[in-house]
Amino acid sequence: MTRTVLESKSKTVVIGFDEPFCVIGERINPTGRKALAAQLEAGDFSTVEKDALEQVACGAMVLDINAGVVYNSNPNPNETEPPLMTKMIEMVQGLVDVPLCIDSSVPGALEAGLAVAQGRPLLNSVTGEEERLELVLPLVKKYNVPVVAISNDDTGISMDPDVRFAVAKKIVERAADFGIPAHDIVVDPLVMPIGALGTAGQQVFTLVRRLREELGVNTTCGASNISFGLPNRHGINAAFLPMAICAGMTSAIMNPVRPVEMEAIRAANFLMNNDANGTEWIKFARVMDQVKDGANFAEASTAARASGAGKDGRRRRRA
Amino acid sequence: MTRTVLESKSKTVVIGFDEPFCVIGERINPTGRKALAAQLEAGDFSTVEKDALEQVACGAMVLDINAGVVYNSNPNPNETEPPLMTKMIEMVQGLVDVPLCIDSSVPGALEAGLAVAQGRPLLNSVTGEEERLELVLPLVKKYNVPVVAISNDDTGISMDPDVRFAVAKKIVERAADFGIPAHDIVVDPLVMPIGALGTAGQQVFTLVRRLREELGVNTTCGASNISFGLPNRHGINAAFLPMAICAGMTSAIMNPVRPVEMEAIRAANFLMNNDANGTEWIKFARVMDQVKDGANFAEASTAARASGAGKDGRRRRRA
Repeated sequence: MTRTVLESKSKTVVIGFDEPFCVIGERINPTGRKALAAQLEAGDFSTVEKDALEQVACGAMVLDINAGVVYNSNPNPNETEPPLMTKMIEMVQGLVDVPLCIDSSVPGALEAGLAVAQGRPLLNSVTGEEERLELVLPLVKKYNVPVVAISNDDTGISMDPDVRFAVAKKIVERAADFGIPAHDIVVDPLVMPIGALGTAGQQVFTLVRRLREELGVNTTCGASNISFGLPNRHGINAAFLPMAICAGMTSAIMNPVRPVEMEAIRAANFLMNNDANGTEWIKFARVMDQVKDGANFAEASTAARASGAGKDGRRRRRA
Repeated sequence: MTRTVLESKSKTVVIGFDEPFCVIGERINPTGRKALAAQLEAGDFSTVEKDALEQVACGAMVLDINAGVVYNSNPNPNETEPPLMTKMIEMVQGLVDVPLCIDSSVPGALEAGLAVAQGRPLLNSVTGEEERLELVLPLVKKYNVPVVAISNDDTGISMDPDVRFAVAKKIVERAADFGIPAHDIVVDPLVMPIGALGTAGQQVFTLVRRLREELGVNTTCGASNISFGLPNRHGINAAFLPMAICAGMTSAIMNPVRPVEMEAIRAANFLMNNDANGTEWIKFARVMDQVKDGANFAEASTAARASGAGKDGRRRRRA
C-alpha cells in the first residue's frame, strides 16, 4: 500500500490510497496575486498569516508555500526568493501545525525552504526535464523528503496522455537511481482545461488509474485547471474532484477556502469509506448549514474549529 | 457498445456508455406522498401534470410512472393500479414527449402501461425472484422493451456485492433464454445507505464496473438511497453521482427538480466528454446563475426551455 508520509513539527499527514483525500492549500502564492506581491515586497505578511489560518480552518491538511515574487526593486528571483521562502515558512510554522509543500522553480529557494522547514515537507516540484531532474532529485535524496513530479519534459507538455505517463515513469525510474522510493513520488499527470480539450477529464481518470496500478504512486493535480475559462467553474470542480478521487487520485493543490469544492471532497471521502461513521461529514454539515444561511465559509470553519478545540485537545492550534 | 434504446412517440433516448447520463425522473409516484395519493383517489391529476412538466424542464430524459397507490375506498392494488397507470400514462404522454418508465410491482399495471405507452418504454422492474422472472420476462419479450433488473432474489437483498452481481448475472442469463439481449437489461446493483454501511459507495463503484465489463449491461440506481438518514443529503448525492458516472453508471432514477444534483450530472457529462464543447453546460450555467440569485430552479429551467424553444424547433414542447 503506497503511503507518502509528510510531517510538520508534531503532525503527520499520510497521502495514500486508503486515506482521506489530501488537500494542499494553494493560497500562499504571490504568482498572479499582485496585491500580495506588493505586500511582500513592502514586508507586510498579514495576508500570508490570514491565508495560513483560514486554509487550515477550512480543511487544508498541507500548505503550499510559494515565494515566486518579482520585486520592483530587484527582478532577480535567485536573489529574492530564497530569503522570502525562509521568512514565509518560519512565519507559517509559527502559526499552524501542518506539513508544508515547498514550491519553487528556483533551486536556491527549494534548498532554503528545506533548510528551515520542520518535519518532512513535500518538495514541489521535479519534472521530466533533464536539468530539473539533476538538480532536484539530489535535494530529495539529501533531505529524505517526498516530491511532486510533474509529467512534462524537455519537449514540453504533451497532449498525448501516454506520453505524460511515460514521462512520469521516467521520473520514477530516475528517482530510483538516486535511491528514492516510488512512494515518495507524488505524480501530477497534468490537468488540461475541459473547455479546450473534451477528453481532458477522461485523460486524467485513465492516467490516475494507470499511475496507481502500474507505478504504485500517489497523485496530485492543480484541480482548478479543469474548469479554466468556463462559467460556473466551481460546479465543474466539484464534480471533477469526486470523479478523480473515484479514479484513485489521492491529493490536489487547490483553494480550500471554497465551500463547494470542500463539500465535494468531504462527501467523496465518506463515499470512499475514508470517513468512519461519517464523523467528519456530520461536523462539516453543521458548517454548511451556516454557509447556506449566509455565513462566510472561512469564518464558520474557524469558529467550528475553535469550538472543537475546546472539546478535543488534538485540535488545539499552537499559539 | 451497449445501447439501450427508449422511445416516446417521436423522441429517442439512448442509455449507453458514450451517452449523456440518463436522468429518469422519479417524482410521479404516490408511494410515500400522501397528498398525491389522496389527490389521485379524488381524481385530481394536477400534481402529476406539474411533476411531468417540471421534471422535463429540469432535465429529466425519461419519466418514471408509478401508480402504487392504496385507495381508502379500495385497498386492492390489483384492481386500482392498472386503470390508474393507464390514465397517468395517457395524461403524461399528452403533456411531454419523453420516453416513459412503467414502474409497478403489480403485473396488471405493467401490462396496462405497456398497452398504452407510445414508442418503446422502459419496464421497471424484474428481480431475481423466480415468480417475478417468470412473470415479467414474457412481457419484456412480448412487447420488445428494455427492463430494469434489480439485483435481489428470493433470499432478499444481499449485503455481499458478489451475491448481487451473481443475481444480476442470473437475470441476464434468464433473459437470454427468452431471447432478450443484454443491451435491453438495465441493472440496478442496489445502493445501500452510506450512513449504515461504510463500504456502500465502493460496492456500487465496483459493481458498476463489473456489470459493464463482464455483462456488458447498462446500469441504474435509486440515487438518493446513498444519503438516507444523513445531514446535508444533497451534498452526498452530488458527489456520489459523478463518482458513479466515472465508474461507468449510465442512468439513475432520481429527482431532477434539484439543482445541486443536476449540476453535478451536467458537469460529469462534460467531464466524460459527453457534452461537446460544453454547449449544455454553458446553457445550464445561465440557469444556475439565476438560481444563485434566488430563482426557483424549476421555474428558471422552464423559462430557459421556453426561450430555447423559440430558437430551436427540436426543443418545442408538444401542446
